This record gives sequence, structure tokens and C-alpha cells, in this order.
Amino acid sequence: MITILKPGTTEERRNQLTRWFESQGLQVHAAIGPEQTVLGLIGDTSGIDAEMLRLLDIVESVSEISDPFKSANRKFHPEDTIVDVCGAKCGGGNFAVIAGPCSVENPAQIKEVATRVKASGATMLRGGAFKPRTSPYDFQGMRAEGIELLLEAKRETGLPIVTEIMNANHLPLFEEVDVIQVGARNMQNFELLKELGKTDKTILLKRGLANTLKELLMSAEYIMAEGNENIILCERGIRTFETYTRNTLDLSAIPVLHNLTHLPVVVDPSHGTGHANLVETMAMAAAAAGADGIMIEVHNDPAKALCDGPQSLTPDQFHRLMAKVSKVREAVTCD
Amino acid sequence: MITILKPGTTEERRNQLTRWFESQGLQVHAAIGPEQTVLGLIGDTSGIDAEMLRLLDIVESVSEISDPFKSANRKFHPEDTIVDVCGAKCGGGNFAVIAGPCSVENPAQIKEVATRVKASGATMLRGGAFKPRTSPYDFQGMRAEGIELLLEAKRETGLPIVTEIMNANHLPLFEEVDVIQVGARNMQNFELLKELGKTDKTILLKRGLANTLKELLMSAEYIMAEGNENIILCERGIRTFETYTRNTLDLSAIPVLHNLTHLPVVVDPSHGTGHANLVETMAMAAAAAGADGIMIEVHNDPAKALCDGPQSLTPDQFHRLMAKVSKVREAVTCD
Amino acid sequence: MITILKPGTTEERRNQLTRWFESQGLQVHAAIGPEQTVLGLIGDTSGIDAEMLRLLDIVESVSEISDPFKSANRKFHPEDTIVDVCGAKCGGGNFAVIAGPCSVENPAQIKEVATRVKASGATMLRGGAFKPRTSPYDFQGMRAEGIELLLEAKRETGLPIVTEIMNANHLPLFEEVDVIQVGARNMQNFELLKELGKTDKTILLKRGLANTLKELLMSAEYIMAEGNENIILCERGIRTFETYTRNTLDLSAIPVLHNLTHLPVVVDPSHGTGHANLVETMAMAAAAAGADGIMIEVHNDPAKALCDGPQSLTPDQFHRLMAKVSKVREAVTCD
Amino acid sequence: MITILKPGTTEERRNQLTRWFESQGLQVHAAIGPEQTVLGLIGDTSGIDAEMLRLLDIVESVSEISDPFKSANRKFHPEDTIVDVCGAKCGGGNFAVIAGPCSVENPAQIKEVATRVKASGATMLRGGAFKPRTSPYDFQGMRAEGIELLLEAKRETGLPIVTEIMNANHLPLFEEVDVIQVGARNMQNFELLKELGKTDKTILLKRGLANTLKELLMSAEYIMAEGNENIILCERGIRTFETYTRNTLDLSAIPVLHNLTHLPVVVDPSHGTGHANLVETMAMAAAAAGADGIMIEVHNDPAKALCDGPQSLTPDQFHRLMAKVSKVREAVTCD
Repeated sequence: MITILKPGTTEERRNQLTRWFESQGLQVHAAIGPEQTVLGLIGDTSGIDAEMLRLLDIVESVSEISDPFKSANRKFHPEDTIVDVCGAKCGGGNFAVIAGPCSVENPAQIKEVATRVKASGATMLRGGAFKPRTSPYDFQGMRAEGIELLLEAKRETGLPIVTEIMNANHLPLFEEVDVIQVGARNMQNFELLKELGKTDKTILLKRGLANTLKELLMSAEYIMAEGNENIILCERGIRTFETYTRNTLDLSAIPVLHNLTHLPVVVDPSHGTGHANLVETMAMAAAAAGADGIMIEVHNDPAKALCDGPQSLTPDQFHRLMAKVSKVREAVTCD
Repeated sequence: MITILKPGTTEERRNQLTRWFESQGLQVHAAIGPEQTVLGLIGDTSGIDAEMLRLLDIVESVSEISDPFKSANRKFHPEDTIVDVCGAKCGGGNFAVIAGPCSVENPAQIKEVATRVKASGATMLRGGAFKPRTSPYDFQGMRAEGIELLLEAKRETGLPIVTEIMNANHLPLFEEVDVIQVGARNMQNFELLKELGKTDKTILLKRGLANTLKELLMSAEYIMAEGNENIILCERGIRTFETYTRNTLDLSAIPVLHNLTHLPVVVDPSHGTGHANLVETMAMAAAAAGADGIMIEVHNDPAKALCDGPQSLTPDQFHRLMAKVSKVREAVTCD
Repeated sequence: MITILKPGTTEERRNQLTRWFESQGLQVHAAIGPEQTVLGLIGDTSGIDAEMLRLLDIVESVSEISDPFKSANRKFHPEDTIVDVCGAKCGGGNFAVIAGPCSVENPAQIKEVATRVKASGATMLRGGAFKPRTSPYDFQGMRAEGIELLLEAKRETGLPIVTEIMNANHLPLFEEVDVIQVGARNMQNFELLKELGKTDKTILLKRGLANTLKELLMSAEYIMAEGNENIILCERGIRTFETYTRNTLDLSAIPVLHNLTHLPVVVDPSHGTGHANLVETMAMAAAAAGADGIMIEVHNDPAKALCDGPQSLTPDQFHRLMAKVSKVREAVTCD
Repeated sequence: MITILKPGTTEERRNQLTRWFESQGLQVHAAIGPEQTVLGLIGDTSGIDAEMLRLLDIVESVSEISDPFKSANRKFHPEDTIVDVCGAKCGGGNFAVIAGPCSVENPAQIKEVATRVKASGATMLRGGAFKPRTSPYDFQGMRAEGIELLLEAKRETGLPIVTEIMNANHLPLFEEVDVIQVGARNMQNFELLKELGKTDKTILLKRGLANTLKELLMSAEYIMAEGNENIILCERGIRTFETYTRNTLDLSAIPVLHNLTHLPVVVDPSHGTGHANLVETMAMAAAAAGADGIMIEVHNDPAKALCDGPQSLTPDQFHRLMAKVSKVREAVTCD
């Protein structure tokens, strides 16, 4: 880490900062020039908060030679992580297809959707039991009962299940869940991340609506720092000024994350666009950009399902999407 | 609530939607024209999720005659809410001054700061015990011990205390805390909000980094829907493209919120700007804009305190700020 | 157009507004209820500024049944527009490949790049002569001389040329230019758009850094309203909070624009990402999302070219990209 | 300027970059360590584009010791610039009050408004003749005739006039105009800025909707680099995700700009909020934050004026605002 001091910094202030660095166990190499002073810090700087340092009134700039994320960093773990969920793999050339309804509604619905998406090639079943809603007056999901219905659908189809957690206290209910999803609004719920880090579940971590990729990786780091390295990152659209789409799907996140981390990256074009008629196209684009999987909302009767309607595909539309996505994957993976 | 259907919507689809509205207990008045159809919904529409409705493929637009927030709505509660924290009032003409360090560090620090800010006119003491940090490797606060030190400072100075919660499981530790703060990153941690709604503590709810004022009010609504109406809203800056400031303090939030809600609104210029040399000016501007209080970081030795340094004032600077803010308040409140 | 008035609007105010609408040549159908009043406007509402109307204190909401863009609207022109630039087509299944250096630097450079990109399959040559730079102290381009060099390269290779205009006064210099580019910062330079609308040149219109797709279409409308319908829209990344990429390429713009307009849409992954190592991947994703073309920066010596370096490809890299993009196009266009 | 190279940069690449710096007339001091290399650049670095440099694949980071703006920089010009417009001063303790209608509509309107705002203490008259509108079908202003009417109002009241330019070709029409406004959408219309730099008019430069303060200062620099130093900067709100206000007024821009530049800073709360009922409060806040002036839309019949209505004050409301703002100014400037 390199800290450049502002011109005019007094010797006293510089020494004060130097002593503070030393008290943190770092060696400080100072290059003191007439115009400016550069402090090179040698040792384990992972405990230094560069953001805070940068805000000190005597500091001109801070360069972090090393990224603040360690466990997620590809530099220290060059091979792709392959997450294996009961045989359904994601990463390292394995493409995961996670499909299912926005919300679990009743036994017939979830079973039919599960059967249909499996037949079309889905490798995991998704379905919301606990639903994060902006309004306390909106439907909050079937909760524990929803998880039960997902498990039944799993027993019937063999598909591993993915569902969202909103509260670490609910963890006992997730004992048989295969993949625990952390939603966009909880991406920086650090206490929840820590608790998930103590489990051995696969965690599907969604990017927050206005968060950077570095912040996403730091949140993955919270889970990994507690010992759980089974993480799938998920790009699901960010908030921008555009209004035709619900969010703006950032597909460049895929190659950028592949450069920075060994963790697999899936894309959710359903939430990322908010419109059923954009899902197929954006799923194809995600595959072309090298995604390790896609997450698609499918409902057996989108017209009836108020919650899922606008962005859910019918099973037939999903079947067609799978064929198209396969063609794109063939085109981009063959050599 | 008014729903306008797209041109070309079939009768079948329109009837389907109409029946669904009716199944939700609403009366539907349809004005069917050659070009478009307008459905007027009469009854309690609070259970209808307008956002979802808007996304249906047959829906052109939705007008919410009534705001989605009820308990927080000034329309149903025209008088200002005055929150009373052990005698320190906020709202309805009462100006709260919440001051103290970013983090509680040790007994001497918190006591000295508490004594100094009280002498300058602060009405509550703030101090972080649980710290939300982007990196798991950064200092996470003194946690339970920090709360103990705040309580000691309270016993000594009489100042009620304000400190942040990050996990509903920690609530037992907050039993003697006067005001529980919900940080920006947890503004939409709906499970936490629900739990706080079951307490009778005053909740200081900070606006999220990329959240709208409507979303802030919906989060307040989560707390109020559970029965707790002791809420102070806090504007603390939003994420924009500007880089000279850490966030962009949105002072128009003050008059807008005063129009929409009866809850008091305080402003945090320390986090809102990230620079000590901007805090006094923005505190004065907040007072001029009619804020019901300010929240200021004060540290007895900002130069030493890496965490607080860049945006913390010294007790002397805080004293000066108080004099300036008082003058502005006199100018705007006299008539 | 539907205007819903706020509850409590006086009859006098309502009549005032009604008379104003009538003075604009519209018929007003009022549905006056106890709770609210709906004014239906019949006639040519293209002269009504809905945004302004919405801000009136008596107006609850405004629904624009018809989009504010007319000439660009697919509803009135269902077939894809195919822009033909000296035989190089864009739109309606024709894929344009616009390649070349960021800036024209000297005769040898532009000729070599032109020859190389043509050999790899580019259909047009790009090169900046007038360069919009944030700082007045940065290189502003070779200007008139740069256009001369582009025309020489065109004579040699037969590739039509694309270059940016910054000032309507420069139009005489663009007489032989085939495609005139309007840069992101000039997307709402309405006076320039009007002048370009009076020419018969093909205009490549880039989306502004923080502009919506509707605003982009309204800018196209400025050109078309003057009579010039030869327009290619270009997505080149928008400003977001992400810092790993220079901008965030919004690929969902492709299917959204294809729904809204008949004009062709090309994608610029070079500016859209700012990093050479992301260009190939995002070009493939753009092709998968149905783009009508791509715009790629290519330099014969990126390492030397300070301006182009970071995001320019070498001719060899461009050749490889062309092969990859072709495979993706085959996969998505075959049926 | 300090350039830090990435670990693993080859000697060849480093030498190549070093030679390039030298060819730009700079001395390069290299500190080559085992982990990284720091290049210190000495000399006039104003010609170096740090943004481009930062994007080079071998560059880790770039620190600009010196700001890229020179003429506008307070470091080289510590005293406040006082702009004098026919005796109406702005900056250095002088508070400008620029008031008038959004658009000039007819002789009676502009004269009445001018007379009324002068009586309440306005120091300059504003009024739009050329109107930048998102849609080509919306009213584009009275153009040349509008300027004539402004000049008449000036003759009658003695108030200097402020009006917007959209095209450098229109400059002859602005010969008698006192202050030429550059609107938000033209902030980076560099060709226009250059032309204005060649005049001796006072330029009121508005911040773009998604532009940083550094970009605003670079645009001022474009004008100053041509010799015109009579510039007033204007904060008029930036685009954010908030929807209750039309834009988000960034009042922290005032103290930040005062730190960075000697140029005066005025605030436009009318466009900055888009709602008449927020203008007074935000004008008071702007005064408290140290603004050198305010710009307020006033119309003699806001209810009739569709364009001005929502954000315009009546002359009476403006009179009241002036009294309130004066009180705030007294409170903050007395010492």
C-alpha cells in the first residue's frame, strides 16, 4: 500500500501517521521530496482501511497494491471454483440453469413448474418462500410452508432447490435447502453474511441495486472469512435512470468478475429487466458473455400470477429459451 | 387507484384482471373506450402492489390516488410527531442535536466527548458499538462493551444515547439504549425493521445510499405497522457520481418529507459529506431548510482517530458550529 | 392523453385547465367523480408537454397513450429501417462492423488500420478528427486534416467513413463524410441535431452518459423532424457507480429499442467498457442480444497510442473478435 | 504527477512509457522496487491526460498532484472573483438575485415581472428566449424576439439581463445581453464554450445533470483558456433516483466549489427542485451554505403559464422569499 501525503504536511503530522502505521505492525518506507512525500507500507495491510485513510486531511491519495478481497481473489486461487450442488455444477465450464416461480404459491403450482423446467433442462429449482417486499402490506410469502413445498418438489423431481433467506434466525428452516439466496437488499447485511459463513450451504449472493463489484466481492469475503467458500455470485441488474427496464442488467460484470475472482457468476435476466419479452434475449447475451449460469422465472400461468406475471416465462417460452441459449453456448465454447 | 389498460387488450384479459381485483375485495368501475379502458378501483387498495400491477403486459399505467404509506402519512396525522427521548425532544419545533464519536473506543474517550458536547448544547450522545464495515477485515466495533461504555457516559452526563443495531438477535443488549439507529445499509432489512416495530424504543432510521424517500417511508411503515411510532428519519447523503464528497447530502429531503409525513427529520452532515471542513456549513444549511435536528461526529482527538478523523470535528469546532446553527435557527424560526 | 386531477381541485382551476387544453385544439372529456377527476384529451396531443403538465399543482398524473416520438416510432413504421451507406447496410438483418482508431494520427496509421480491418471484414472505417475532451489542454484532434486522411483511406480501401462532428459550422468539412457521428456529450445539443436533420447524411447518434432511451429517441426525433431519416442509434455505455469499467454497457437497450423504434442499433463496446480485454466478450454479447452492428476501436500500435491504448484492439485481436462474433451471429440468426 | 506501475510490468514496457513522458517534455524520476515501480513526473503535466494514462494496462494508478484546472483554481488565485454586471455584483460577499420567468412570453408579462422582482430586491432579470426542450414538438421559445423584449424590460427597469444561448451562431443576437447562460445540457458543448471564451460577456455556466464538480470546473476552464474570466458557476440540481423532486439540489457543491475555485457560485432552486413549494426553503438553505446568489423563476400568473407554473413563484411569494433569505444571510455573514 502506498500513501501519498499532501504538499505542506508538517513533519509532526507525518511522524504521527508513521507511528500509527508502525503500531499496526507495518514497516514504513518514506520518500520525502520537496513537493510531496510517499509512504510505502510493507507488511500485512489487510487491517488498514484505505477508504478511511484516504479521507485524512493530510493524505493526497492511497494506492492499494493488493485488492482488499483475499479469499475470493483469483490471484491467490487461479483455477475456477466449481460449485457442486447435489451433482448440479456451476463454474469452470459447467452451466447452471436455475428456474422456477417468483413465489411458491401451492403444491400443484410448484410441482408442475418443477416438472416442466426439469424436462427443458433446468438443473436447479428456484422459488421464493420468504419474500422481501417494499411494503409491509404486500404478500410476504408462504414462509416455512413454502420451503416445505419446495422440498416436496425436490423429492419428486430430484432438482436441488434455491430459496432466499432474510433472517439468520430462520436458518433452522433451511436445513434441507441446497442453495440459500441472499437478495440484493441484504447484500450488505453483514451479520447475516457472517452467519451464512458458518454453514456449509452453497450461497447465491446477489449484487445490490447500487453496489459496485468490489462491494459484492467484499460481501462474498464476509462469508468466506467464516469458512464457507461455496458461493455463486449473481448479477441481477442495477438501479440506473432508465425506466423502460426495471433495472439495468450489467453484463460486463461477467468478464470483470471472471478476471477478479474464481467464484462462478450467474445472471438473472428476469429481475434484471422486469419484462418477460426481454428475458430470452438477455439470457442469450449472458451466455455469450460467458456466464456460468442463468436464473429464470417460470410460472405455469403467468397471466394469473400477479406477482410473477410481468417477468415470468411460461414453461413453453422457457423451453424455447433453453434451445436458444444452448446454441449460443455451443458457439462460444467450441474452439 | 386507477389502472389504465393498453390499447388492444382483449375482453378476456380485461375480465380476468377485473375478477382478480374483485377477489381482492375491490369494486371495479370500468370506463371502456374505443382507444383505451380505465379501471377505477374502489375500496382498500393497500393490499395491491402497484409496482407489480404496472409491469403486467396489459397495463398501460397505474395511478395511486392514495400513498402506499399509511401510518407515516401526514394526510391522516396532520400534526408533527414530537419524539421525546428522556426529555430530549425532536420534531414540532424542537431541535435535536445528536453528537459523539463514530466509534466508542475506550472509557476516557467517550466520557470526555460526552461531557464536551453536552457543554456545547448537544441533547443526545451518539457512538458506534456495532460497526457496519465493507470489509470483514476492518474493525467491527467494541460491540457489547461499547454499549456498556455509552451507558456509563449517560449516567455521568444525563445525555440519552443513540447507537446502531445490525442484528435483531442483539436486541437484549439494547435494553437500556434510548435510541436505536438503523444504518443506511439496513434500511431495507425488513426482518430487522419488523423486530424493532415490536419494541417501544425510538428508532433513528437512516435513508439508504440509493433509496428514494418513498422507500424510506415504506421502511418506516414496516416499523409502524408493528405498533412502534417513535421514529426519527435521517437524511445522511445518497450515492451520486460526485467524488469530492463521500455522498451527496439531499437537503430537499427535509421539506419534501415534511410535506409527506408527520415524523421528524434529522440530518447527518458528517457522513453526508465525509469531510470535517464541510460539516459546519452543511449543518447551517440543514437548519435553514427546517431540519428537526442534526447528527454530528465529534472526537476528542480526530487526528489520532483513524476512523473518525476525516469527518469528525473537535469539541471546539463543534462548539463553534452550535453557535452558528443557533443563529440560523433564530433567523428561520422567528416570525 | 389522460390527465388525472388531484382531489380537492376547485372547479375554477379545472375549468381554467380545460380551457387551456381547448385553446390547444383538443377536445376534453371530463369524468368528474367525488374523489377525483379524469380529463381525457382527444386530438393531436403532440404539442402538449406532458412533463410540464405533470408538474402542475392540480395534476395528480398524466398518462401518455401515445409515445412522444412519432417518426422514430415502430408503431407507425413496423418494418426495420435499413440504412445503406455506400452499400454497407445496417439494420433489418444486416450487420455493420465499424472499426478504426480513436483518433486519426497520421497517413500511415489510418491507412494501415483501414487495410487491416477491411481484410478482417469491417464494413466501415471510423476515426476521430474532432475530439471532445474534458480538458481544453488535451489533444483536440487533427480536425480538418484528420478528415482529409480519412478520405484518403476511403479512396484506398473503399470503406465508407464515420467521424464525429462537434459544431454545425464545421458541416462544410463533412461534405464527403459518409456517416456523421454525434457524440454522447452532444446528444442533447438540439441546435446541432436540427442542422444535421437538414442534411441527407447518415447520422450515428450516441446515447448520452446519463440519458434514458426515451431521451435518445427524442433526440433522433429532432433530426427526423427536419427530414433526415438516416439514423443509426448507438449504445456506448452509461454512467453508473461501477468503477472497474469506464461506463456500464446497457445491452438491454438493444431489445428495448427494437421494440420501440424501427431504427437500427449498434453497440460500442470499446467506449462502453474502456478496457481492451473486455471488448471481445461484450461484442459477442451484443451480437447475441441482436445488435445491428458493432463499433470497435482498432489501432496498429495500441501500446504506443496513449489515447487509444487502453481500449483499442490490435488488428490481430480484431480479426479474432470477428471470427467469434460471426459464430455468435450464426447461432442467433439461424432458425 | 505520480504514476504507479502494475507489478510484473516488464522493463521494456516501462522504458517505452518513460520515453513517451520524456517526449512530452517531462523529467521522469523512477523508484523501482521489487513489488512495484513509482514514476514521478516533473514539469508541466497539464498536457497529460491522467484519465487515459490510468487506463493503460501497465498502470496501477495515477495521482494528480496538481488539479487539471488552472485558471479556475483557487490555489493560483486565492481571492474571490467578484463578477460585476453593470454594477450588480456577484461573489466576494456580494449576493446576486437573478429572477424572472422561465420563458419570455409577451411585452406585458416580462415588463410586469421585471418591475415586480426589482421592487423586491432582485439584481438581475432572467428570461428564456431560446428554450432547450427534450421534444422538437414543444415550444422552442420566442428566440430573437424574446431577446428584444428582455432588452426593453432592461431599459425600463435598469436590471441587467440573463438569457440562455444554445448555438454559437446566435452570438450576434446576444450583443446587448449582459449575462449569457449555458444550460445543463450544453455544459460539455466544448465548441460553444470556446466561442464564449472569445467574448467579454459574463457567462453563467450551469452544471450538467450527471456531471461532477471537476467536470464543471473543466468546462469553466474551456472558457477561461480563451481569455474570458467572467464566469458565474450555477448548481441547478443533478439527476438521482429520487422522484419527488425533479432533480436533487446538491448544496454541498457550494462549499466544495468555494474550496476549489475563486469563481462565484449561485444556486437555482427552481429547476433544482421543480416545485414552487420547495423553492423558498431551498433558497434559504443555499444562502446558509454560503451561495453567492440565487436564481429564481417568477411569473406574474403561474397558474396560467403552463411552462413556468409548477416551479414558478408569484411576485408576492418572491417578495416573501427575499425577506426570509435576507434574514438567513444576516445570520450567516455577521460576525
